[in-house]
Amino acid sequence: MDSDFGIPRELSDLQKLRSLYQPEVPPCLQVSPTPSLSPCLAHQSFSSMFLKQRLTYLNELDLYLYAWDLCILQGTTVRVEFGDTTTCADPADVHAISRAFPHTYGQPLAHFLRATAKVPDAQIITDHPDVRVGILFCGRQSPGGHNVVWGLQHALKIHNPKSKLLGFLGGSEGLFAQKTLEITDEILETYKNQGGYDLLGRTKDQIRTTEQVKAALNACKDLKLDALVIIGGVTSNTDAAQLAETFAEAKCQTKVVGVPVTLNGDLKNQFVETNVGFDTICKVNSQLISNVCTDALSAEKYYYFIRLMGRKASHVALECTLQSHPNMVILGEEVAASKFTLFDLTKKICDAVQARAEQDKNHGVILLPEGLIESIPEVYALLKEIHSLLKQGVAPDSISSQLSPWASALLEFLPPFIKRELLLHPESDDSAQLSQIETEKLLAHLVEAEMNRRQKEGTYKGKKFNAICHFFGYQARGSLPSKFDCDYAYVLGHICYHILAAGLNGYMATISNLKSPSNKWRCGAAPITAMMTVKHWAQSPGASSIGKPAIHPATVDLKGKAYELLRVNAGKFLMEDLYRNPGPLQFEGPGADSKAVSLCVEDQDYMGRIKKLQEYLDKVRNIVKPGCSQDVLKAALSVMSSVTEVLSVMSSTSSNGLTTL
Amino acid sequence: MDSDFGIPRELSDLQKLRSLYQPEVPPCLQVSPTPSLSPCLAHQSFSSMFLKQRLTYLNELDLYLYAWDLCILQGTTVRVEFGDTTTCADPADVHAISRAFPHTYGQPLAHFLRATAKVPDAQIITDHPDVRVGILFCGRQSPGGHNVVWGLQHALKIHNPKSKLLGFLGGSEGLFAQKTLEITDEILETYKNQGGYDLLGRTKDQIRTTEQVKAALNACKDLKLDALVIIGGVTSNTDAAQLAETFAEAKCQTKVVGVPVTLNGDLKNQFVETNVGFDTICKVNSQLISNVCTDALSAEKYYYFIRLMGRKASHVALECTLQSHPNMVILGEEVAASKFTLFDLTKKICDAVQARAEQDKNHGVILLPEGLIESIPEVYALLKEIHSLLKQGVAPDSISSQLSPWASALLEFLPPFIKRELLLHPESDDSAQLSQIETEKLLAHLVEAEMNRRQKEGTYKGKKFNAICHFFGYQARGSLPSKFDCDYAYVLGHICYHILAAGLNGYMATISNLKSPSNKWRCGAAPITAMMTVKHWAQSPGASSIGKPAIHPATVDLKGKAYELLRVNAGKFLMEDLYRNPGPLQFEGPGADSKAVSLCVEDQDYMGRIKKLQEYLDKVRNIVKPGCSQDVLKAALSVMSSVTEVLSVMSSTSSNGLTTL
Repeated sequence: MDSDFGIPRELSDLQKLRSLYQPEVPPCLQVSPTPSLSPCLAHQSFSSMFLKQRLTYLNELDLYLYAWDLCILQGTTVRVEFGDTTTCADPADVHAISRAFPHTYGQPLAHFLRATAKVPDAQIITDHPDVRVGILFCGRQSPGGHNVVWGLQHALKIHNPKSKLLGFLGGSEGLFAQKTLEITDEILETYKNQGGYDLLGRTKDQIRTTEQVKAALNACKDLKLDALVIIGGVTSNTDAAQLAETFAEAKCQTKVVGVPVTLNGDLKNQFVETNVGFDTICKVNSQLISNVCTDALSAEKYYYFIRLMGRKASHVALECTLQSHPNMVILGEEVAASKFTLFDLTKKICDAVQARAEQDKNHGVILLPEGLIESIPEVYALLKEIHSLLKQGVAPDSISSQLSPWASALLEFLPPFIKRELLLHPESDDSAQLSQIETEKLLAHLVEAEMNRRQKEGTYKGKKFNAICHFFGYQARGSLPSKFDCDYAYVLGHICYHILAAGLNGYMATISNLKSPSNKWRCGAAPITAMMTVKHWAQSPGASSIGKPAIHPATVDLKGKAYELLRVNAGKFLMEDLYRNPGPLQFEGPGADSKAVSLCVEDQDYMGRIKKLQEYLDKVRNIVKPGCSQDVLKAALSVMSSVTEVLSVMSSTSSNGLTTL
Repeated sequence: MDSDFGIPRELSDLQKLRSLYQPEVPPCLQVSPTPSLSPCLAHQSFSSMFLKQRLTYLNELDLYLYAWDLCILQGTTVRVEFGDTTTCADPADVHAISRAFPHTYGQPLAHFLRATAKVPDAQIITDHPDVRVGILFCGRQSPGGHNVVWGLQHALKIHNPKSKLLGFLGGSEGLFAQKTLEITDEILETYKNQGGYDLLGRTKDQIRTTEQVKAALNACKDLKLDALVIIGGVTSNTDAAQLAETFAEAKCQTKVVGVPVTLNGDLKNQFVETNVGFDTICKVNSQLISNVCTDALSAEKYYYFIRLMGRKASHVALECTLQSHPNMVILGEEVAASKFTLFDLTKKICDAVQARAEQDKNHGVILLPEGLIESIPEVYALLKEIHSLLKQGVAPDSISSQLSPWASALLEFLPPFIKRELLLHPESDDSAQLSQIETEKLLAHLVEAEMNRRQKEGTYKGKKFNAICHFFGYQARGSLPSKFDCDYAYVLGHICYHILAAGLNGYMATISNLKSPSNKWRCGAAPITAMMTVKHWAQSPGASSIGKPAIHPATVDLKGKAYELLRVNAGKFLMEDLYRNPGPLQFEGPGADSKAVSLCVEDQDYMGRIKKLQEYLDKVRNIVKPGCSQDVLKAALSVMSSVTEVLSVMSSTSSNGLTTL
């Protein structure tokens, strides 16, 4: 714990240049209407100086200064427009969630507005007392995380230079132990736009047990925090919502704010389009995958099986496929949906190898998400049996004998290395230790055996099948963040302050319209409870149990546009070697401003549409005011009646397109 | 074999930009004295046009054009200065090498000179008939290889637009089968400054058997080649020397030229400072290592064991350590020199883990070269026994029972995965399949067992030891080449033409003074035989056998400056986490022009010194001419006598600092 967090360090030339990069904040958060004016200037308290000057001289320059002065004063204003109260994606879950979160469920959406926006109901916050805010990294490091801290620190200082930002050292453990580091400009110096979480570190990724929650509450009370900002993925943001509820119940003044930062890209829902770190991870991995594709094409004798980090969902694998065009990708979601067995998967790959060999192609690149292994039905069932025995304290060595006959048979059929890996203790979220299970080697092993069989049999006539396996995991996680992730994280940090200024509790900072340039980004906040779902398990026929409300990792939407793009190209990718090489992550020039393909093809902007709908409803209300003609009223009634009927039917079937594992 | 080699392909934006990059050639190869003039222009035959213009007008502009015209005419001149005849590094090997290479041993060094150089003996070649040149990629792909082809094609066309460059498809197999692709500007379009060998492909890496050599000879005769350029590492360049000798013997007109291209960086000797690809590989790997270091520092709970590709020698591991400052690196050369056993290595790492834990550091990054496994004495002996049994046709399953008792005991002591990997068939150069042997997992396994033992015993009090293993191999090999590799390869391609124009056979293209900017590079050629050594094995007391002369991979010089730099910093790197992050490979801005640390710290420039020595000798000869005073003559005799005595003693002890495995 007593590491050298936050110490200044020697940066390489490239890191130095990156540390000088200043992300822009969108107009709705800008402190001055001149976007070219560096926000660094604005946070010094010039206002009073200008006021004095104004009294002394009254000339043109002075008038200009006066105007600018006003702008700055206006700039420190936070303007928030509240939308309708929120529900959650599946109407069936409303009861469970609202009961679990009586204080924080059903709060309205919040939109932050630019100074020039004309919204009559907007709440205008001009009073910015000095505040104390705590911030911590939860869960796995994701490139860009440091910029959330920077953005928040900057926003705090603009609005009141006396405000303090305390970073908790070593993640949740630092929170429980109240170990803090005050975040200053000097400390941030060598961490701006840099990867990793080494400014503050991180340890355990959960704040869940009664003891942990109590320790967190005590920390916030003892340190007199006005807000606690939690940077993390699905688990950490679920914890943030729980803390917010507990704090509200305990009448603790600390507001809890969540920030969607996870390289897995699986904190995705109506309000959150992508996560900080996902863009970088996909770019770094795509570079490596492309390099391997080039290698395949040069050597023409290997099949490369590459497993990608990303937990249960296959977002990273899908995005990397769309960026680098390898021959094949097997998404966990497809496998789960089609109930593909190990045997089916092996056959699918072998058939592809054989088809390519018939075109004299004896090389290829196949991507596998690390979550794939849990998506294979029989392996999933085996893992469930193993984990249940491990929880009962059965030693790994004795597990095989206590498994059900079929599970034991499957385990014994598998090669020794994978057996050992499947017997590892599960993670804190009950999933298998996905980063440790070498699915790529298992499949390469099975495919090789089958290809050798086919070759002997004479059905396969290509070159001897040769596989090379890779796991692209930890080497991408600490990367310098891409420009997109730098910007996204920095702006989210700013939003955290706006959420706090608006007095909101249990919200996540959100930006929509991310595929557009950052000056078109829409900034807001959504209650975390609105992103939750409840798992229902059929225990036995007739009986079912439900889990705790939580944000569940969003899986790849098999009806979405990104998957569609893959599907229509899969055949060409498989046979034609249309390998694409985006090259190493660049910070200037071509590619530096590119964004994730899956972000750009999806037609998201949920927040924009919610606002648009509100405008329509307001218009109807304005047109059909008492006094309007009977015809207009009748038309309105008729149309609105059919609209509500259609929507009721759609909502009750809960066909929301959002699937969870 | 019938793949789509050389087809145009879709490039990403970054690749497109890279394809427009035009490396500069140093003054000694330039076709025009104006370095800013694009060489692309010069190769169009403007000369005759200018001559006509000159006759028409006689004004100032015309005079300028006339001068320029002359420059271009002069530019197509190749000026070569021959140095002394060469020997080889170890005087003891002279006999064996000169006997094996009667036609190609002992040829002089060649230096290519700029047009303005005043060297009276320089040979000036102004006649450039159209020639036919074949080129092929041999052995593993290395970033930058394509630029050798481009540089050569460009040089050919400048000197005679009718010359033809034929690429052999699929490496040596394409050579034997006479499968060629004519390299044109159009074909090169999408391959300039791009990674991989997919322009032509490559297959087997040897041209060695009588049958293969004969097929190569027939191909060169049938295709009427004036030269054959072989792009590759130590093995391929040894083959090139053998081909040159055979061709000379057979009075075949084809001259053979070698180009030092190997990511391993182990084709290093007096004449060759570094290899094409090494710079890129080290930069790509250093990026990934730095990312892992950042990860280690953020998570603070893992030890990362990273194995690096690079064959027997540890150049890549050393360079990456100097670029990214991980906590520890274990060079094969150190292990071989100190005769460290597996037990010693485990202890060394465990002691380091323990020392770090005492400073509350429970994380770290350890690099291992893939060649390490062969450097561990007992493992090397075991591998020798296994390979000898495999050669006798013993099936892998039955090998353990036929090993000597100690070897069998060692094999059975090792974990199953490594056992399987050690039993793989050796490579064509008799070394183990280094890329397949997971040394990082073996060491992580042994260290974990020992740390657990120490923890139980109470001597280790840190956190539970957790290892994560990575192999950084194939994902770097296909990378876009760095600027340095683009330049180096392109200029080497140009030199190939100069070698051919000078009528040299069995030479390697060389550039010295590489650490300086490219306009200071010295271009030349050295006979490949001068880089050879002969292995001596003590079979039994009294009897010894010698191997064939060959270029052997140069190992890391434990007396060299690069290793010295590591040694003085190793303690700090181990304890202080001075991780350095050079960031992803950039093509513009900071870091884009950086060169390998090991290249820059070494005080090489052998070719420059050879020339300097020649100058001294010439000066002495000029000063002490017949007619000089008796005193001057006596002084010269006395000094030269002691110089020759010292050098004779030094040469006979063959302390040449160049060690081979």
